[in-house]
Amino acid sequence: MPDTPTNEPHRIRDIRITPVAFRDPPLLNTVGVHEPFALRAIVEVTTDSGVYGLGESYGDAAHLDRLRAAAARLTGVDVWHVQEIARRIRDALAADAGSGGHGMSGMVTGTRTADRVLSPFEVACLDIQGKVLGRPVSDLLGGAVRDRVAYSAYLFYKWAGHPDAEPDSWGAALDPDQLVAQARRMIDDYGFTAIKLKGGVFPPDEEIAAVRALRAAFPDHPLRIDPNGAWSVETSIRVGRELAGVIEYLEDPTTEIDGMARVAREVPMPLATNMCVVAFDQVKPAVEQDAVQVILSDHHFWGGLGRSRSLAAICDTFGLGLSMHSNSHLGISLAAMTHLAAATPNLTYACDTHWPWKDPEDDVVVPGTLVFEKGSLAVPTGPGLGVELDRDALARMHERYLACGLRERDDTGYYRRVHPGFDPTPPRW
Amino acid sequence: MPDTPTNEPHRIRDIRITPVAFRDPPLLNTVGVHEPFALRAIVEVTTDSGVYGLGESYGDAAHLDRLRAAAARLTGVDVWHVQEIARRIRDALAADAGSGGHGMSGMVTGTRTADRVLSPFEVACLDIQGKVLGRPVSDLLGGAVRDRVAYSAYLFYKWAGHPDAEPDSWGAALDPDQLVAQARRMIDDYGFTAIKLKGGVFPPDEEIAAVRALRAAFPDHPLRIDPNGAWSVETSIRVGRELAGVIEYLEDPTTEIDGMARVAREVPMPLATNMCVVAFDQVKPAVEQDAVQVILSDHHFWGGLGRSRSLAAICDTFGLGLSMHSNSHLGISLAAMTHLAAATPNLTYACDTHWPWKDPEDDVVVPGTLVFEKGSLAVPTGPGLGVELDRDALARMHERYLACGLRERDDTGYYRRVHPGFDPTPPRW
Repeated sequence: MPDTPTNEPHRIRDIRITPVAFRDPPLLNTVGVHEPFALRAIVEVTTDSGVYGLGESYGDAAHLDRLRAAAARLTGVDVWHVQEIARRIRDALAADAGSGGHGMSGMVTGTRTADRVLSPFEVACLDIQGKVLGRPVSDLLGGAVRDRVAYSAYLFYKWAGHPDAEPDSWGAALDPDQLVAQARRMIDDYGFTAIKLKGGVFPPDEEIAAVRALRAAFPDHPLRIDPNGAWSVETSIRVGRELAGVIEYLEDPTTEIDGMARVAREVPMPLATNMCVVAFDQVKPAVEQDAVQVILSDHHFWGGLGRSRSLAAICDTFGLGLSMHSNSHLGISLAAMTHLAAATPNLTYACDTHWPWKDPEDDVVVPGTLVFEKGSLAVPTGPGLGVELDRDALARMHERYLACGLRERDDTGYYRRVHPGFDPTPPRW
Repeated sequence: MPDTPTNEPHRIRDIRITPVAFRDPPLLNTVGVHEPFALRAIVEVTTDSGVYGLGESYGDAAHLDRLRAAAARLTGVDVWHVQEIARRIRDALAADAGSGGHGMSGMVTGTRTADRVLSPFEVACLDIQGKVLGRPVSDLLGGAVRDRVAYSAYLFYKWAGHPDAEPDSWGAALDPDQLVAQARRMIDDYGFTAIKLKGGVFPPDEEIAAVRALRAAFPDHPLRIDPNGAWSVETSIRVGRELAGVIEYLEDPTTEIDGMARVAREVPMPLATNMCVVAFDQVKPAVEQDAVQVILSDHHFWGGLGRSRSLAAICDTFGLGLSMHSNSHLGISLAAMTHLAAATPNLTYACDTHWPWKDPEDDVVVPGTLVFEKGSLAVPTGPGLGVELDRDALARMHERYLACGLRERDDTGYYRRVHPGFDPTPPRW
């Protein structure tokens, strides 16, 4: 039997968790605006056999504390024993009240702490498994069913630049024309064939006008709008009806399963969510009410790639569509998202990614693996995730984390520096 | 990086499908009685790298034809690309009308052809993956969460022996006392701590009396009864109420999701099924009606171990219990069942197995790995499934297949040789 390694464990010997910061433009959303730096945690798991694996997660202080508490319990576990890792993490968090560390500036607070914490360790273990085998992570998920994974052009209303700073190269996007220009640049640069607009920023009629302008400018690109629950049920129904035939799905127009269910009954398009169904225990009530028709998976809060595959099986079984959510992220996450999407047959929508908003120089992985072409990424074929840690870059980005002073994501607080009375409480309209 | 094999594929070079027969006692069920031989198909997948993997499935002629048609399409596929294997099998069966080959003598006809056919190939691929890695199959499923897997004592009403043959060592079991004696021997020999009675054979009051006798004789053993849908809704409700507090679940008292839902509303114990929910598309209607509270998984018809894990995730998500179904089987299936159960946290019931009804000399695997102790099996720790093919035994059991003349499972036809007017159409009571 050739190529058979000895039946030896690959036990976790060491875990390094490094918070990093990278520049982020002033992207607007319904709770405020992105701060000058986005935070992430880079997880490096090393085995006693000398193999390292990578994971990436949120960088908020509360989440970092939990990652460290979890890491302390994982020494000695074999990297194939992901269920044992999950069990130890649940134990480590048993007394955790679950406050904070959600990574999403208060927009999404229903994700499960244990799943958020498990995710980067699971991804790192899969990275190691793939390296030991000499196979891509997609092979560990049943094999890629597509060579390339399509992503969407993720448009944001934005300020021209951060307060007290020069405008960035994207400039302002505060009206339909500017958004169309943003889309055009992004599509020219990346080739995206689907477009998502982050809404919930301006009164709905302005955002409807923006969607219509995008439709006119890009007649063949599937469109989506996501106001992050900013609208009342009534407003959501009105907007949904006005955008009939224009968007492929309407994402989180309003908050809560009950509210989404009321909207779903009255609008013609599927409703999608990454806010009211963000954990396994929320699936059943959502299905019972037929509240959503598409779930946006996100391995960062669904507990890693394996549990995201379970979510995919659930969607397939219950006739729900499947798409993919994104936060500001680096290359480790992009690689993981791409392997997962490649190996998930029913993930038929173009995935979200914040990638174009990141400075190409800001990353912790050696460049070259993840290059967009025609709006999609080739599934990495190298061992594991297929990306390599650039330790110098990691050190630089950690220095930036230390220097930038940010320890939480606080889009609302940052926005209030400019608009002191701002109240993001939904529904805003 | 030690122990890293080269990134070389392990492609399917050859697949051998061998039908085998092994002696089976005259076990009674609601559609008839087991014939003198049970049929199975042994699937051997060999890679171009020289590794072989094992799968086991039904031996009916129609199923064998499908396995062969599928096998012809799988040459050259990498054994990690299970989703590609599934796709090719769906293609191979695209023009298949799906009749016959269900493996269960007409008792269960709703299973999906493509999943039944996929199963042994998937298991064989996991066996190969484990061998390449030098790890047990349970590691490929996230790692065992228990060292041992509990099975139940699977009691059958039975004739003393096959017609025109000497009584077998178990003798007749046609009344409560004989069933209690059967249970006692089985528990003495194997140490089982749960008991399942295959019912639907005698009028319900006789079977209630049998369950009560078992309860009296084994006060601490969880009990179940499974009449395979033999009862009307009304009879099911009556029996369920009479057995309140006596059985841990009531398995398939009646047929169809709608009938089960009507029973579920009126009886105090969970209803379990391996008849009305045997495929993914049946889960949603069952959940909508709250028709069943426990699903008996079976990797032979749910499409292998990976898809059975998806079923487990669905059960966990929707608050359904999970148990495991069995047909007459050999050691390859027992090993696969044990790995699956070991790596499935929410499989908390003792699994079914027909194992005690098989002559210990009848198997295709080298003995020694699967030895019951206190009603449970240690999870094999060797590479892959942890069982090795005994090629001489395979040849002998194939000879027996050729000689025995059976090509289908036909419990009803066999029973009618003794009771010519027998009509198994449910509800029988």
